[in-house]
Amino acid sequence: MTNNNNILIAQGGGPTNVINQSLVSIIESEVKTNRKVYGSINGVNGIINNNFKLLNKISSKDLELIKNTPGAALGSTRDKPDEDYCKKIYEILKKKRICKFYYIGGNDSSDSLKIISKYSREKKYNLQCIHIPKTIDNDLVLNDHTPGFGSAAKYVAQLFSGINYDVKSLPGVYIGVVMGRHAGFLTASSALLRDNNTDGPHLIFIPEFEFNLKSFVDSIKSNFKKYGRCIIAVSEGIQNKNGKLLTETIKQLNEYDDHGNIQLSGSGILGDYLASVVKDKLKVSRVRADTLGYSQRSFLGSESEVDQKEAFEIGRAAVKFSYTSPDSFSIGIKERKSFNQKYITKFIVNKLEDIAGKTKVMPLSFYDNKRFNVTKEFIDYCKPLIGKNFPKTTSII
Amino acid sequence: MTNNNNILIAQGGGPTNVINQSLVSIIESEVKTNRKVYGSINGVNGIINNNFKLLNKISSKDLELIKNTPGAALGSTRDKPDEDYCKKIYEILKKKRICKFYYIGGNDSSDSLKIISKYSREKKYNLQCIHIPKTIDNDLVLNDHTPGFGSAAKYVAQLFSGINYDVKSLPGVYIGVVMGRHAGFLTASSALLRDNNTDGPHLIFIPEFEFNLKSFVDSIKSNFKKYGRCIIAVSEGIQNKNGKLLTETIKQLNEYDDHGNIQLSGSGILGDYLASVVKDKLKVSRVRADTLGYSQRSFLGSESEVDQKEAFEIGRAAVKFSYTSPDSFSIGIKERKSFNQKYITKFIVNKLEDIAGKTKVMPLSFYDNKRFNVTKEFIDYCKPLIGKNFPKTTSII
Repeated sequence: MTNNNNILIAQGGGPTNVINQSLVSIIESEVKTNRKVYGSINGVNGIINNNFKLLNKISSKDLELIKNTPGAALGSTRDKPDEDYCKKIYEILKKKRICKFYYIGGNDSSDSLKIISKYSREKKYNLQCIHIPKTIDNDLVLNDHTPGFGSAAKYVAQLFSGINYDVKSLPGVYIGVVMGRHAGFLTASSALLRDNNTDGPHLIFIPEFEFNLKSFVDSIKSNFKKYGRCIIAVSEGIQNKNGKLLTETIKQLNEYDDHGNIQLSGSGILGDYLASVVKDKLKVSRVRADTLGYSQRSFLGSESEVDQKEAFEIGRAAVKFSYTSPDSFSIGIKERKSFNQKYITKFIVNKLEDIAGKTKVMPLSFYDNKRFNVTKEFIDYCKPLIGKNFPKTTSII
Repeated sequence: MTNNNNILIAQGGGPTNVINQSLVSIIESEVKTNRKVYGSINGVNGIINNNFKLLNKISSKDLELIKNTPGAALGSTRDKPDEDYCKKIYEILKKKRICKFYYIGGNDSSDSLKIISKYSREKKYNLQCIHIPKTIDNDLVLNDHTPGFGSAAKYVAQLFSGINYDVKSLPGVYIGVVMGRHAGFLTASSALLRDNNTDGPHLIFIPEFEFNLKSFVDSIKSNFKKYGRCIIAVSEGIQNKNGKLLTETIKQLNEYDDHGNIQLSGSGILGDYLASVVKDKLKVSRVRADTLGYSQRSFLGSESEVDQKEAFEIGRAAVKFSYTSPDSFSIGIKERKSFNQKYITKFIVNKLEDIAGKTKVMPLSFYDNKRFNVTKEFIDYCKPLIGKNFPKTTSII
C-alpha cells in the first residue's frame, strides 16, 4: 500500500480568474510533504494521454505569477469521462502510483471523481479523490458559493456600472447578455454596483423563470418611459415556457445560422435578436446589445480579492482535510443562514455523490419575478464576494 | 465687453472612462476665478434647449467621485451642428453672457467650435471656443494621442491577455472584434500585454489595410498549426478592397438583418460571420467570437492611471492657456519624435481649423501587413499610455 504516495493535480471545465490560486496552494502544501507532485495537462485528457508534468521544481516566484494568472495553468478539458474512460484513468493512476488525485473543476469534474473513486475502491486500491470546486456559474449544491464566481460577478458588476453611466450620457436601450446556462447568479450580479434607485440595470432576466417576449418588451417600455433609458441584463440561458432555450428558437427562425452550429457563448445572436425586437416594437432609435463573452471568466485585473483569498485557502483546506481522513471528498464553502451579517468564510467537507451532477439555481428569495429584478437579499448575499477594489462613482445629471 | 464673463462647459460624442477628469479639472480651475460656471446638459443639444446647470456649488467630495466615474457626467450628444444650429448656439451663448465655451469631445466637436468661433468673430462678440480632446479611437491629428484612448487600450489589452490564457486552457480559434471605424489603434492595443512570442493575439486586422477573407483564413490556419490555437483581434471597421465595410457586405448577404438597421458596435454580426467562415473552412471545432462592446469605453476600474492624470491635466492646461491669449484653440498632447525613450506628457495649442474634421490613422511603421501584426514601434509608442496597474502573469503549459 505505502509505495503509492505520489500526488496528482488537474484542472477541468471552463477556467476562471482564480482557478490557479487553488492550484498553487495545493502545489505549495503538497510539495512540503516531499512527495512527487504531478500535474496532468488538459485535465483528465492528460491522464489518458500520459501527458504529465512534475510540479515540484516550479520556483516560488513563478508560483506567485501563476497564482494571479487567469485560465487554467495546467490546461483544461471539456472531456466528460464515461465508465470506460474512468477505468482507463484508474489504471494509469495506479501505474503512476498516485495516492491522491486533486481535481479542480465544476460538478462534471466531481462526477468523474465519483466514478474513479468507486472503481478504485472496488479494486481495493487506495486512491483518494478530492474535488476542489470552481465555477463562475455558482451552481454547486451544498456550497454557499463557489471560487471563481466572485471574480466573474465583480467583472459583470463593473461592466454594468460603467454601462449605466455610458447610457446615462447617450440615452437609449442597452441589452447585455451574460453567461449562465441554468443559474442566474452571474446575470443577477449586474445589479451589485447600483448606487441608487434610478441606476441600471433596470431589468434582469434569468434562466430560472420563463422568458416571455411580450413582458420583456412591455417592461422595457415602462422603464424607458420612467428613466429615459433602460439597461437590461439577460442570461444567455433564458428559456420560453416549454423550457426551450430562446437561442435555439431564434436559430430555427433564422437563415443566418446556416454557416455554423449555434452555441450560447461566443456568439452575438441572442443579443442581436432581442435588440431587433425592441427596435421594431418600441421605435427607440438607440438600441444596443453586447454579449459579454469570455472576458467574464478571464479578464486580467478584475479578480475579487475575496475570491482570490478563498480560492487559495480552499486548496490548502483540502490538503489539510486529506491528511485527517483517507476518504474521497469535495471541499466546500459552508452555506450561510442569514445574509445581513458580516460574511466569514468557513470550509466544509461534502461527499462526492452529494455534489456530482447536481445543479443549484437562484433561491426564490433572491429574485422578484414581477419587477424582473433581484431582491435586497441577493445583494446582501453577493456583495461581500466581489470585494471592495473599485472606484466610487456619481454623476451630475 | 467685460460684462460677458460667464463660463460654459459641455461634453460631446462617445464618452470615455476619463472624460470627467477633464470636466472636473476645468470646473475646479474656473470656479476659483469667481465666475459663473455653467454646464450644458447633453452637449450642444443642451445649449439650444436651454438646459443648463450651474456647477459652482458642487462639493469637492462629489467632484472627486465624478472624476472617477465613466461616461459623461453632464450627458453627451451625437448632434453634429450645421451652420444654422451653430448660429442658434451663438445667440444663446451671447444671451447667457458666455465668454468661454469649453467643449470636451472628438474632432466633430472641434468642428462645431470652429463654426461657432467664426460666427462670433464676425459678430464681434468676444467668445473663446476651447476644444478639449477625448476619444478612445485616438484619431485626432497633431496629437501624440488623445485622452480616453489609454484607458480603452488598457481594457482591450487586459481582455486579450486574459483571453490568451483562457484559450491556452481550452485550445481553439478566438476572434475578438474591437471598436474603431477608421483607425486601428485600439485593435492594435490587444497586443500590449503579450509576454512572449507564443502569446496571442497572433493576428491583428485593422481598417487601414484592405481585408481579404482568404488571407484571413490562411493566416489563421498557419498560426493554428504552429501554436495549436489562434487568437485574432479584428477591428469593427475592416474594409474590403473597394473600401466597403465588411459589416455592410455581410448585411447584404444576410436575411438576419431584416429586423433592424446595422450598426458596427452593439451588434455581434461581424464576429459571428467571421467565426462561421473559419469553422466552415478550417474544420476547427472550437471557434468563438466575442464583440467587445461598450465596456471598452466605460468599464469601471480599468482606467489607466496615466490616462487619468493626462485627462485631468489637459483640462487645467486649457484653462491656463485661455488666460494668456483670447483666441479660440484646441489643446493637445505634443507628438513624440521617437518612441524608445521615457515618455513625458507635453501640452500644446493647436488651431481649431487644423484639428476639425480630420482623422489620424495608424502610421505605416506601427503595422506589419505581411504578418498581420503590430510592430515593436507601436508597442513602444503605446505601452506607456496604459500605465502599470495590472497583475504580472505566466503559465505552466
